[in-house]
Amino acid sequence: VEDSVRVGILGCGNVGSALVTILTRDADVIAGRTGLRLEVGPVAVRSTTRERPSAVDRRLLTHDAGAVVADPSVDVIVEVIGGIEPARTLILTALKAGKPVVTANKELIANVGQELFEAAASAGVDLLFEAAVGGGIPLIRLLRESLAGERIRRVTGIVNGTTNFILTRMTEEQATYSEALAEAQQLGYAERDPTADVEGYDAGAKAAILASIAFGARVVAGDVYREGISAITAPDIAFAARLGYVVKLLAVAEQLDDGDLAVRVHPAMVPVTHPLASVRDSFNAVFIEGESVGELMLYGRGAGGMPTASAVVGDLIDAAYNLRAGGVGRTLNPAPVRLRSIDDLTSAYYLDLEVIDRPGVLAQVAGALGRHAVSIRSMEQDGLPEGGGAARVVFITHAARERDVQACLTELRSLDVVARIGTLLRVLGS
Amino acid sequence: VEDSVRVGILGCGNVGSALVTILTRDADVIAGRTGLRLEVGPVAVRSTTRERPSAVDRRLLTHDAGAVVADPSVDVIVEVIGGIEPARTLILTALKAGKPVVTANKELIANVGQELFEAAASAGVDLLFEAAVGGGIPLIRLLRESLAGERIRRVTGIVNGTTNFILTRMTEEQATYSEALAEAQQLGYAERDPTADVEGYDAGAKAAILASIAFGARVVAGDVYREGISAITAPDIAFAARLGYVVKLLAVAEQLDDGDLAVRVHPAMVPVTHPLASVRDSFNAVFIEGESVGELMLYGRGAGGMPTASAVVGDLIDAAYNLRAGGVGRTLNPAPVRLRSIDDLTSAYYLDLEVIDRPGVLAQVAGALGRHAVSIRSMEQDGLPEGGGAARVVFITHAARERDVQACLTELRSLDVVARIGTLLRVLGS
Repeated sequence: VEDSVRVGILGCGNVGSALVTILTRDADVIAGRTGLRLEVGPVAVRSTTRERPSAVDRRLLTHDAGAVVADPSVDVIVEVIGGIEPARTLILTALKAGKPVVTANKELIANVGQELFEAAASAGVDLLFEAAVGGGIPLIRLLRESLAGERIRRVTGIVNGTTNFILTRMTEEQATYSEALAEAQQLGYAERDPTADVEGYDAGAKAAILASIAFGARVVAGDVYREGISAITAPDIAFAARLGYVVKLLAVAEQLDDGDLAVRVHPAMVPVTHPLASVRDSFNAVFIEGESVGELMLYGRGAGGMPTASAVVGDLIDAAYNLRAGGVGRTLNPAPVRLRSIDDLTSAYYLDLEVIDRPGVLAQVAGALGRHAVSIRSMEQDGLPEGGGAARVVFITHAARERDVQACLTELRSLDVVARIGTLLRVLGS
Repeated sequence: VEDSVRVGILGCGNVGSALVTILTRDADVIAGRTGLRLEVGPVAVRSTTRERPSAVDRRLLTHDAGAVVADPSVDVIVEVIGGIEPARTLILTALKAGKPVVTANKELIANVGQELFEAAASAGVDLLFEAAVGGGIPLIRLLRESLAGERIRRVTGIVNGTTNFILTRMTEEQATYSEALAEAQQLGYAERDPTADVEGYDAGAKAAILASIAFGARVVAGDVYREGISAITAPDIAFAARLGYVVKLLAVAEQLDDGDLAVRVHPAMVPVTHPLASVRDSFNAVFIEGESVGELMLYGRGAGGMPTASAVVGDLIDAAYNLRAGGVGRTLNPAPVRLRSIDDLTSAYYLDLEVIDRPGVLAQVAGALGRHAVSIRSMEQDGLPEGGGAARVVFITHAARERDVQACLTELRSLDVVARIGTLLRVLGS
């Protein structure tokens, strides 16, 4: 027995056209395995004349996205336009009309997810978004279903492929940040304006979604503390390597002992033996720590048309099953939560200082750290290549409070012997 | 609204008592998140007097496993006894009585899974077994649901923690095989009789289940080609490291171009940059290659009471949802498939030979390889520490057919100049 499900698609860029390709190429495989025939229905596009992959039947293209949603022959809607509007309005309309929606739209879920979840719940239809975080990595299902009974303590992800590519090049080829960024741009991994990636905005939106799913908490992109990687230098990377670390941009969502959540994005030094350390190039991974399950990691392609479309297909099959059963999958109803400010979080730190190279300097610097309850785990000193009486001192601290570390930096800045304060990086426990 | 689901548990060893602990400790968390109250019902044990964790209420213990299955107050059965009988009969009885079953029993699924799947399908109830492969790693759900529409090409797993621990110790501490095995036994990672682990039987059963799930194919443990790690030597590990590889015991299930399946377990050289190379100690991981999704890896605790029980809880929540909805999850109906013999598979190889150290020897050896269409990618020669005119020659070949390699070994054995044929290892492509 085979059920036909007609899929209306909003947007036909990278992901949209990969989706049409998969649904066309693998229709028989999917039907054989699931009993569901996923038919490509109308596809809403901005340009009906643009060149598209051969699988895309031009006769299905239309300018009218609203008509795709309203089309009575369309059973399920896939939204791969991106951005907030018109995606938000189209999805709300589809949900109200009782049509399940599958979306790959990270901005939308991270910013107005709550409104959409409520609309889906009150309409009693599915709103699925596996593709919105981690592209082809089936993270949402893992968190929502496999770990539905798990007390999750922390989720730590490498969720931005562009920055991971840049950091990998800096680590493995000793490239500078600018060289690595230029290479990423040349390969199409980074945009001409790379801000959203390198300053952590993309990772921040994903961190908000991860926190919502892992902890059932109402967290939006704007709640996430965020630092990017543009200040990381080749010497930072080299020091990290010498100390047994690699630098990664991490998205972290964790539940603290009192139930508060902390959600943040920042570069960090990761011990080389940690599973996240071996996530190279543009790959993504999410490392989950749970009370019972222990440590779990999912690794894969975080972006790209085909992997992302593959996640959309997984969601489509889910939505189609539920539609056939006349039911709905597990709905998400994130609850308000108290967020802990970064100032009150505790971490070990890497701190890079340029100091005047003369006796007594270290005692002054160490004194400032001590006055702010920042205790030193290890220290390395290097003459600077340009010489001139300056030296580079790198500290790794024991766990210290962010607020104290920041106060300490203010004092260090006021010292005559400190020529420059370089990079401050958090250090992940091993 | 909260639904109560009463869970009858067969077996209360490591996994069973961890399950009772989780269900007791996290009952409110699970109820809050899922609307399901999973109640611990009767627990069938061999000994009602043995010491057990405090969460296990002695009044729930019984010797009568049949009575647990028959108990009308029991909604769902968890089987964590292990072995074929009486687990098989108890599960069949439960399914026929319309009770969903969650099992962590690898032997059972790998040997008589087909009978159980059919019984579950004809009774219209769930038979879930996430915990049977990879302990806490939610691999089955990923393959069956997230990747339901994916054309999977190959699944490559490190699915035995004991052997991975041994190989990690050999790699990182330069331990010999016997030293590493002794340490694993001391830490409780290996049994006193380690055969099932070190000779690949455990991994073989898991490979059969992986193949069934990934390819919907009827594969049992006995179908799986199997080699263990007991012949791996410290010099093999050292050579691998020098050439940029680590040695891992791999379970591989792949679909060949003509649709045939190949399923096997053997040690292999894995490039250090491959994600599987960084899976250390007793951790497990499964690396999936799919047509659309690309590369995907799941990493976590493959064994242990709490991680395995965590997977059982995930399945229990599933079964309970389906029970409440009066339905059943996706059923598995593996189809017969043609299996390709190892003889007809192609791989690059690592071959270690001890030869007489005199001019012309290499030409003879290379000649034998050439006559069997085994072409050499790289070669290294070492004097042996014991000296005495013997040398060690290590070859890495280009891709060659197993049948040809075996014929070549037969010819090499007949050569006067070959003193000993050492380890033959497959080399994973990067």
